[in-house]
Amino acid sequence: CALVVPLTATADQAEQDRIVERLERLEEGGSTSWTGGAPVFESPDGEHQFKVRGRLHNDAWVTRGTEDGEGDIAGTHNRRARLGIDGVAYDDFAYRLEGDFVGGSLAVRDMTLQYRGFGPWELTFGNKYLDQSFDGRTGSNFSEFMERGIIIGGTRPEAGSRPLGLTADVGGDNWHWSIAALGDAVDGSSDTSDDLSFVSRAHYAPIHSDDRVVHLGAWGYYEDLGETRDIELSSRIANPFNDVTRVESGVFPDVGSAASYGAEIAGVWGPLSATAEYMGKRFDSDESGVSPTVDGYLVSLGYFVTGETRAYAGRRGTWTRVTPENPVTEGGPGAIQLVARAETANYDDNDIPGTDVDALTAGVNWHLVSHVRLMLNATYFDTAGSQDDSGYHVGTRVQVDW
Amino acid sequence: CALVVPLTATADQAEQDRIVERLERLEEGGSTSWTGGAPVFESPDGEHQFKVRGRLHNDAWVTRGTEDGEGDIAGTHNRRARLGIDGVAYDDFAYRLEGDFVGGSLAVRDMTLQYRGFGPWELTFGNKYLDQSFDGRTGSNFSEFMERGIIIGGTRPEAGSRPLGLTADVGGDNWHWSIAALGDAVDGSSDTSDDLSFVSRAHYAPIHSDDRVVHLGAWGYYEDLGETRDIELSSRIANPFNDVTRVESGVFPDVGSAASYGAEIAGVWGPLSATAEYMGKRFDSDESGVSPTVDGYLVSLGYFVTGETRAYAGRRGTWTRVTPENPVTEGGPGAIQLVARAETANYDDNDIPGTDVDALTAGVNWHLVSHVRLMLNATYFDTAGSQDDSGYHVGTRVQVDW
Amino acid sequence: CALVVPLTATADQAEQDRIVERLERLEEGGSTSWTGGAPVFESPDGEHQFKVRGRLHNDAWVTRGTEDGEGDIAGTHNRRARLGIDGVAYDDFAYRLEGDFVGGSLAVRDMTLQYRGFGPWELTFGNKYLDQSFDGRTGSNFSEFMERGIIIGGTRPEAGSRPLGLTADVGGDNWHWSIAALGDAVDGSSDTSDDLSFVSRAHYAPIHSDDRVVHLGAWGYYEDLGETRDIELSSRIANPFNDVTRVESGVFPDVGSAASYGAEIAGVWGPLSATAEYMGKRFDSDESGVSPTVDGYLVSLGYFVTGETRAYAGRRGTWTRVTPENPVTEGGPGAIQLVARAETANYDDNDIPGTDVDALTAGVNWHLVSHVRLMLNATYFDTAGSQDDSGYHVGTRVQVDW
Repeated sequence: CALVVPLTATADQAEQDRIVERLERLEEGGSTSWTGGAPVFESPDGEHQFKVRGRLHNDAWVTRGTEDGEGDIAGTHNRRARLGIDGVAYDDFAYRLEGDFVGGSLAVRDMTLQYRGFGPWELTFGNKYLDQSFDGRTGSNFSEFMERGIIIGGTRPEAGSRPLGLTADVGGDNWHWSIAALGDAVDGSSDTSDDLSFVSRAHYAPIHSDDRVVHLGAWGYYEDLGETRDIELSSRIANPFNDVTRVESGVFPDVGSAASYGAEIAGVWGPLSATAEYMGKRFDSDESGVSPTVDGYLVSLGYFVTGETRAYAGRRGTWTRVTPENPVTEGGPGAIQLVARAETANYDDNDIPGTDVDALTAGVNWHLVSHVRLMLNATYFDTAGSQDDSGYHVGTRVQVDW
Repeated sequence: CALVVPLTATADQAEQDRIVERLERLEEGGSTSWTGGAPVFESPDGEHQFKVRGRLHNDAWVTRGTEDGEGDIAGTHNRRARLGIDGVAYDDFAYRLEGDFVGGSLAVRDMTLQYRGFGPWELTFGNKYLDQSFDGRTGSNFSEFMERGIIIGGTRPEAGSRPLGLTADVGGDNWHWSIAALGDAVDGSSDTSDDLSFVSRAHYAPIHSDDRVVHLGAWGYYEDLGETRDIELSSRIANPFNDVTRVESGVFPDVGSAASYGAEIAGVWGPLSATAEYMGKRFDSDESGVSPTVDGYLVSLGYFVTGETRAYAGRRGTWTRVTPENPVTEGGPGAIQLVARAETANYDDNDIPGTDVDALTAGVNWHLVSHVRLMLNATYFDTAGSQDDSGYHVGTRVQVDW
Repeated sequence: CALVVPLTATADQAEQDRIVERLERLEEGGSTSWTGGAPVFESPDGEHQFKVRGRLHNDAWVTRGTEDGEGDIAGTHNRRARLGIDGVAYDDFAYRLEGDFVGGSLAVRDMTLQYRGFGPWELTFGNKYLDQSFDGRTGSNFSEFMERGIIIGGTRPEAGSRPLGLTADVGGDNWHWSIAALGDAVDGSSDTSDDLSFVSRAHYAPIHSDDRVVHLGAWGYYEDLGETRDIELSSRIANPFNDVTRVESGVFPDVGSAASYGAEIAGVWGPLSATAEYMGKRFDSDESGVSPTVDGYLVSLGYFVTGETRAYAGRRGTWTRVTPENPVTEGGPGAIQLVARAETANYDDNDIPGTDVDALTAGVNWHLVSHVRLMLNATYFDTAGSQDDSGYHVGTRVQVDW
């Protein structure tokens, strides 16, 4: 009997050595993690990472009650269909490339190489989403309304929301500061010099616990247009499917540069959340001598009837992903949030007549699971000034991201 | 000797515990499966899945014998170059996003979120390929001919083959029923209301065994165009590279709505397969008082000289992937299928003169392996009515999908 | 004591059997390898492979000193933003599909199915980058200058650098020969026949060791344009952001066919490398009777101050990836290469007046890690002939690939 035992044990040992060899081969492949949707691949040393990312926002909208009836249209609309990749090479280099099927064709969105090895700073080369306003900077997967505030569109730089350039970021658990020097959008012309903008935003959260947040922030930018141009603002009102219902400025002649600025406050108190923002933009012209200004504000409230707390990204100063406590796939109700927003966008300037708009939006956000959300928005709007209109938009969204 | 044994065994046990820990870490990454081409990633609980998908169809075509010689052109043509992803989140939510490099630029194709948790129903939000006709619904990777029947293009809704909307599907091993309410294509205009269509298809396979199938199906749709428009059908004949050889209707004036309908039968008997379809479309106008109609049929036969049986998707009512019994990579001949098709498309209406076309196609499909196929098609066509033409197309395709 | 031992060993054995089962399940997923950036997935039998690939080249350019000042522009520019996949199915079938966000929208690049089972030959169906010139064929991730030589653009076929067709390749460690029959680019028109070109290139490296290379190569093509057309060459000079500074030919009338040819020599000697190329193109017209010709050369030198040796791809006859001996992520300086180039492009023909250009470029390539590179280029150019201009371009690039 004692003779048999060692033989068995010896056999085990040889097999165990083979097992360890096989384990090592498998471990050379690195590891995979799942965060709800798509896998994240990581090399064995943790230095390299790779992920396919994307989002899908499919909307349906109906408008009624416009004064001449021309804006009373209805239809389906793909708001976002993004596909891209996120990678990290040698720990310090993060790259991202993503496009969006806008109007049916894949147009570029983020396109960046980030270097994380320069002390506390993150240096990002390429075109990333502009750091401008709390609502403006919150990712579209996490926005509380189907569309951002109207005035956010009105205060974007001429080069758009993703100019190509260099951004430097620094921050901690409850603050950040970013500065950027940016040129034109990627599809800008190549026979004149780029616009040049300098953009900065900072925030600080004096309170930032699990269920309490107070957020304070400010931002601004200056853009030099290189060559003067006439500028006429024209923004859709809450409903991106409807090209008819718009708020428009007059023509600002011979604009050579512009400056924009904003202040933001936000807070979370258990299931309650609130934001308030003011922002404006001044268009300067040496030639015409006038400096027309647009401005506006937005105030929003949110309440989770299912008890969740609004997730806040302390390093970015924005809302972030809501994770339901009881997702529908586990028989729960998901996370249901009621939201309301009042906003104004004043494109009417004393010197140059345009339109002002007031809008009230009520909405429901139903997060079935962490990565799937249904949205319902109803907006009443009223424009005054060079155009006079009012009406109702009702919209729904089916959203998934990965 | 007996003293040595326990020590060795104890060492094994500690090592084994470490091995189990390492196994557990690896198992947290989930599993990967390979179905011939690209990997499918799955989370450890099986609730999440992810896959990159695509297809490549590269063609070369030559046309000869057209009456005035203008259509006698030759060249290469990329028919499809698709890239996209397929994912499942939390078991019940399936998402898909895919584009096609048509004319050199990536245009959107499927773009859907599907919910599978609503009893036996699958609810799909977004734009998926329309459920219309046996040949029309069979995926292009599995079609028996390089191009679908001509009349299938002629009976598509005005909003195209992938309008944005909501589809509900229910079905079993040998039947399905789908209903859809659909708006415009994703690149539709945003200053008028969408078209609105209601589409339905059902099929039943009274016989459905490994080598015998009898398939019966029917479908129809009604579309309300919102605003009336003049419609003129113009379809390429069997060869998508050739813009010159076409079948065209006259101008149908002030069309406000349309209805389309079709019946389908298909069968498999060992290596033999056959299909027959009839379909038509009526264009209605309150203003002009005429209701022009187009219609056509197609009949096809297939025979595997290498003995395979035509694969049939019982839940969808379409052909599906052919897997060679002896692929070329294992020294076999692959799967070789001979096919023939007779078809007609009548765009000539008594009230509004147009063109009718008859076409005969013979082809060879050589499946080298399950995901790679070579195709050869030869078509003789003859048009009559407002244009009079005839001629030959010969085309080849190199196809891979993943 | 001896009684305890067998029990422990038995327990081990059962657990070990379970461990082996779990190992086997994991091994069914295949393996993953990491080459610096993105993972490569492989099936357990090694027959299938899959990888997401891409590159990002973000540039900033400034031009000064042009004669009338119109070309003195500055700005940022996305030169390349590529995303695609590489796959292998059943060992013998390799597929690739890749697009580039040019001007903001994803346009197709490589789109091929390759068959590797035909003896020593690789047969590639689809549109791949043309095998033409040492500098022309070297991938943009590995080029020593931000832009290829000017004359390379001038000698491209009318169908562009990636026509759709069939390429056959054969080669060994230090030689290759390719022949291709090609039609139009994928976005070519479909109402006339394609251009038809025959392209061939061969190289031989009589010396090819770790730190010594002598490369000799030659290439040529003939293209039949099908229908005659007027051709006017217009190439940007070293700076792809600047549409103003260009070298242009006169109008070559009624061109029916063309032929291009080139000879190449390159060498590596430790940290030193050098290339020299001459190439030309003749445009033939039966109607006009004249055969205008353009030609040019380029000579380049490179030196690694950090001691690396220029990597050379012996099977392709091009430069390939530089791997720093001491990457910055390990505290080293990375690989730093100084480069210089003299070049000329003569678009001025005796019969048809145009412009000639001479250009001198100095540059620094800083490979931080194997997949991240910073580039700095300064070019002085001088044009003569029908236009008279000169000036300086200074450009920088931030580059990552995966």
